Amino acid sequence: MARRINLNADIAEGWGAFDIGDDAALMRIITSASVACGFHAGDHTTMHRICMLAKELGVSIGAHPGFNDLWGFGRREIKMKPADLEYMTAYQIGALQAIARYAGLSVTHLKAHGALANMAANDEGYAMALARAIKVVDPSLIYVALAGSEMEKAGRKLGLRIAREGFADRQYEEDGNLASRSIPGTVFREPGKALEQALRIVEKGEVVARSGKVIKVEVDTICVHGDEPSAVEVAKTVRAGLDKAGIEVVTLPELIGSR
Amino acid sequence: MARRINLNADIAEGWGAFDIGDDAALMRIITSASVACGFHAGDHTTMHRICMLAKELGVSIGAHPGFNDLWGFGRREIKMKPADLEYMTAYQIGALQAIARYAGLSVTHLKAHGALANMAANDEGYAMALARAIKVVDPSLIYVALAGSEMEKAGRKLGLRIAREGFADRQYEEDGNLASRSIPGTVFREPGKALEQALRIVEKGEVVARSGKVIKVEVDTICVHGDEPSAVEVAKTVRAGLDKAGIEVVTLPELIGSR
Amino acid sequence: MARRINLNADIAEGWGAFDIGDDAALMRIITSASVACGFHAGDHTTMHRICMLAKELGVSIGAHPGFNDLWGFGRREIKMKPADLEYMTAYQIGALQAIARYAGLSVTHLKAHGALANMAANDEGYAMALARAIKVVDPSLIYVALAGSEMEKAGRKLGLRIAREGFADRQYEEDGNLASRSIPGTVFREPGKALEQALRIVEKGEVVARSGKVIKVEVDTICVHGDEPSAVEVAKTVRAGLDKAGIEVVTLPELIGSR
Amino acid sequence: MARRINLNADIAEGWGAFDIGDDAALMRIITSASVACGFHAGDHTTMHRICMLAKELGVSIGAHPGFNDLWGFGRREIKMKPADLEYMTAYQIGALQAIARYAGLSVTHLKAHGALANMAANDEGYAMALARAIKVVDPSLIYVALAGSEMEKAGRKLGLRIAREGFADRQYEEDGNLASRSIPGTVFREPGKALEQALRIVEKGEVVARSGKVIKVEVDTICVHGDEPSAVEVAKTVRAGLDKAGIEVVTLPELIGSR
Repeated sequence: MARRINLNADIAEGWGAFDIGDDAALMRIITSASVACGFHAGDHTTMHRICMLAKELGVSIGAHPGFNDLWGFGRREIKMKPADLEYMTAYQIGALQAIARYAGLSVTHLKAHGALANMAANDEGYAMALARAIKVVDPSLIYVALAGSEMEKAGRKLGLRIAREGFADRQYEEDGNLASRSIPGTVFREPGKALEQALRIVEKGEVVARSGKVIKVEVDTICVHGDEPSAVEVAKTVRAGLDKAGIEVVTLPELIGSR
Repeated sequence: MARRINLNADIAEGWGAFDIGDDAALMRIITSASVACGFHAGDHTTMHRICMLAKELGVSIGAHPGFNDLWGFGRREIKMKPADLEYMTAYQIGALQAIARYAGLSVTHLKAHGALANMAANDEGYAMALARAIKVVDPSLIYVALAGSEMEKAGRKLGLRIAREGFADRQYEEDGNLASRSIPGTVFREPGKALEQALRIVEKGEVVARSGKVIKVEVDTICVHGDEPSAVEVAKTVRAGLDKAGIEVVTLPELIGSR
Repeated sequence: MARRINLNADIAEGWGAFDIGDDAALMRIITSASVACGFHAGDHTTMHRICMLAKELGVSIGAHPGFNDLWGFGRREIKMKPADLEYMTAYQIGALQAIARYAGLSVTHLKAHGALANMAANDEGYAMALARAIKVVDPSLIYVALAGSEMEKAGRKLGLRIAREGFADRQYEEDGNLASRSIPGTVFREPGKALEQALRIVEKGEVVARSGKVIKVEVDTICVHGDEPSAVEVAKTVRAGLDKAGIEVVTLPELIGSR
Repeated sequence: MARRINLNADIAEGWGAFDIGDDAALMRIITSASVACGFHAGDHTTMHRICMLAKELGVSIGAHPGFNDLWGFGRREIKMKPADLEYMTAYQIGALQAIARYAGLSVTHLKAHGALANMAANDEGYAMALARAIKVVDPSLIYVALAGSEMEKAGRKLGLRIAREGFADRQYEEDGNLASRSIPGTVFREPGKALEQALRIVEKGEVVARSGKVIKVEVDTICVHGDEPSAVEVAKTVRAGLDKAGIEVVTLPELIGSR
C-alpha cells in the first residue's frame, strides 16, 4: 500500500474581527491547506496571512469555496442554479490566486466546504459545476473529492486530477459514507483511535465500519480538523503517528503531480 | 493633439436579483468597461455576463474595485487600513481575472469606484494600496487615475501604466478637480454640451472651468455614465460626435499599450 | 359569498441603491402591503418610505420576512434550524414595528416571502417557527397563509388570526396548490383572465383548475404582483374590476378584525 | 458623591458561527448589557440567548447599534446621511425589542457602538440621528452618552433621559476625552489601577488625567470590556472593589428612572 499520504485541513475561516479555529497550530501539522475564500468565511486579509504562512511552512494551498452564506458558515444546504454556483466557484478560485501571488504561491487544489461539499458529493449538477469552474480557471487544479462521490465522477469526466479524501476522526458506514455526526461515538475525539484509523487507511486501504465490517477505502488525502481544542490534539497525534510509522506526509502536488 | 481616445464606463453593477444601469446599451458605446467585482456591487453572474458580452463587442475590461459596502453601493467614505484595502483590491482583481477566462479575455485595467476613487485621489495611503495591488497581481494592468491625483503619483512611483481620466458630462473647477455635484448645472444632462467638452478635451487638451477660465487637461480616457436614461443619451451623443470628428475611439490596451 | 376581500402585494423590496418593483404604483392598488424587512430585501430607509406612504394611502402593513439571503432575494431554499428561523422572524417583525412608529402605524400581519413561504407551506417546523414568532412578538398579528397549508395549521394550533391567501394571476392544480410557473400559461399575464379568476374566487369561492375541474378555494386576501410592468397592469385591472362589481376591497384588519 | 453606579458592557457580539468576547463571564459582573443588534455584530440567535440570560441574572438590556459594517465590526468610520443612520438605529432598537419579548424584558437604554459612538460624540448630525430614533421608537430609553459630548447635548435637546458614561480602564486627557489607545499605558490592563480610577470616579467625581492634573467627571455608568482575557479580570476586580466599598451597583433604569 501507499507509503505516502497528504494531510489537509480547512484554514483561514475567520472573517473581519471574527476568528475561528487554530490556524497557527494546524498549519504546522498539515501539508495542504484548503483556504476559505470569502463566501462562507475567510477574507482578503486572512487569506493573505495564511498564504504567507503557507509559503514559510511549505504547505500547499487550495481554494475552499463555500456557499455565499456567511451567517450559516456555509453549513446550510442551499438550492441554487448550477451555473451560478459554477461562476461563484470560479470567482473564489481567482480571488485566492491573486492573494497567493503575495507569497509567490500557486493555488494547486480545490476542496468544497460544508454543505456545498455534502451536496456536491451526491448531486451531479453541483459536482459538475465545481469541476467546470476548475476546467475553465485552471485545469491543473487537483479536485479533492470523497472517493466514489459525484465529485469524483465529475472530475474524471472532465479529465481533472483527483485527490480522494478520507477521514481519520470520523467513523464510516459500510457503504463508504461517513456515519452521521448525530450518532454518538462517530466522531473520534480520542487521538489514539483517530491515528489507528489513519494508519489503517494508509497502510491497508481499509477502515472498520460502524457495523464492524472492514471495508476498502482508497485515499490520497486525510482531512483533519481545527475547530475545537481536541481536534488539534487529534491532528497532532495523527501526524506524529504517521511520521513515526515512516509514512511520508507530502503536499497534494507532490502526491498527485503538478503542471 | 491626440486623435485617439478611450471611452470607459462603470459596468455590471447589478447584484443578485437587483439590476442597475443599462449595461447592454452602454457596452455598445464604450471601448473599455470597468467591471464591478462583488464588493460595492456586481457578482459572479453579472461579471460572467459582461465578460462574454465584452468579448463579443471587442470591449476591453478592467477591475472596478470598491469598498466592501454593498448597502452604500461603495459611495460612502470609509476609513480603513491601507493594507486591508490593498488585499481587498487584489482579491477583486483576481476574482475578475478568473471570470474573464470564460470569455478568453485578460483584465487590462483597474479603476476604483465611487468613494474609494474619491478618497484615493487625495490620500497617498489609499492610492498606493491600489497601486501595490496592481503591482503584485498583474503589473501590466493600466491604472486609471484622475490626472494629477495621488493615484497618478502612486502609479508613476511604482512604474505602472497610467490612463488619465477626464469627464465629458461634468464641469471642472479651475484647479482641475470636478465641481461638486451639489452645485446646479455642474452635471451636463444636455448631450450637446457634453460632446462639446469631450471634443475640446480630445482636440485641444483643455476644458472651460466653472469660472469661465480655460484650463489644460491631459486625458487618455473619457468616462461616461449609464445610471440614468439621460446619461445613456449623453454617452451615445459623445461617441457619435467623436466618431464623426474622425477621432479614433479605442480600447485602453490599444491606447496605452499592453504586455 | 363574501362581498369583501383584501388585496395584498410584496412591497419595499429595494435595498440601498438597488430598486425593484413599482412600489408607488402598487401601493395605490392594494389595501395591505407586505413590507420586506431587510433580510432578503428591504432596508430601514425603504421601510420608512413605505410606512409613510401606507399611512397616507390608508394601506395596512405587515412584516414580510424572508431568509437571510440577500443575494438570492430569498428565493433559494435554505435548510436551517427552526429555532433560528423563529428568532430571525421575530427580529424582522420588531424592526418593522419600530420603523412603523414613524408613521404612527401598527404592523398588523405577517406574510412569509419566497422560498421561506414555499417551504413553510409544507414543513411543519418552519410553519410553527413563523407562528411562534408571531405569538411571542405580537399575538394579534394576522398570519397570511396559503389555504390548507402547514402555515394555516400552525396558526390555528397557536390560536392566531389567519388570512387565507389566493392568487388572481396564477393557475391552480386540482389539489389546491399553484401550478408550477414552469408550465406555460400558468401565469396569467392577460389582465382579463386574472380579473375573471379573482371575481370567481370572491363571488363563488372557486377556481377552474388547470385540468378544467372547478375546485373550492376559501380566500381572504388576493395577492397581486409588481415585479414586471404587465403585473402592475394586471393588478390595476383586478382592483378596478372588483370595485366595479361592488366588492369592497378592505385592509386585513378591517377584514379579519384587529386587537 | 454618588454611592450608586451602573456597570455596562458590550455584549452579544458574536454572529452566526463566529464568537467574540466572553459574554457568560461579563454578564455576571455587569448590571446593564448593551446588546449588539445585527449590524456590526450580533444576530437574532445571540440576541435571544443574551436576553434570556439577562432575565435570569437581573441585568437590564439596551440596544447597541452600530454601522452596517459587519466586516469592520463597526470600527471603521463611515460617512452617511443622518436620516439613513436614524432609521437604521430605529430598526436595530425594534429588532431587539422583539427579541426581548422572549424574556419578558423591556429594552431600557441605547448605547452606540465603536466608530458610530466616536463619530456621534463629535458630530451633531449623528448625535441627533440617534436621539431622534430613540424619541420616535421609545422616548423612555436612556441615551448612554460620553459626558459633555454632542450625544449628551442631543439627548438633552430632545428631552431624553441621559446616562453619562465613564471608563475604569482607560486614561483621560485633561479635556475630558479619552487618551488615544495608541499612546502606551493609556489602557489599564492592571486590575488595581482600573479599580482605583473607578472608585475615584464614583466617590469623588474625578480622575487623574494623563498630564497628572485632576479633572472632574460626572458619570452614571462605567463601561467595562470583555474582548480580551485581561479585560474580564479587570472587570471582575472593579466590580468586587465597588461592592467592597459599599457602592451599590445597579441597573440603568434603577439609577436613572424608568417609565
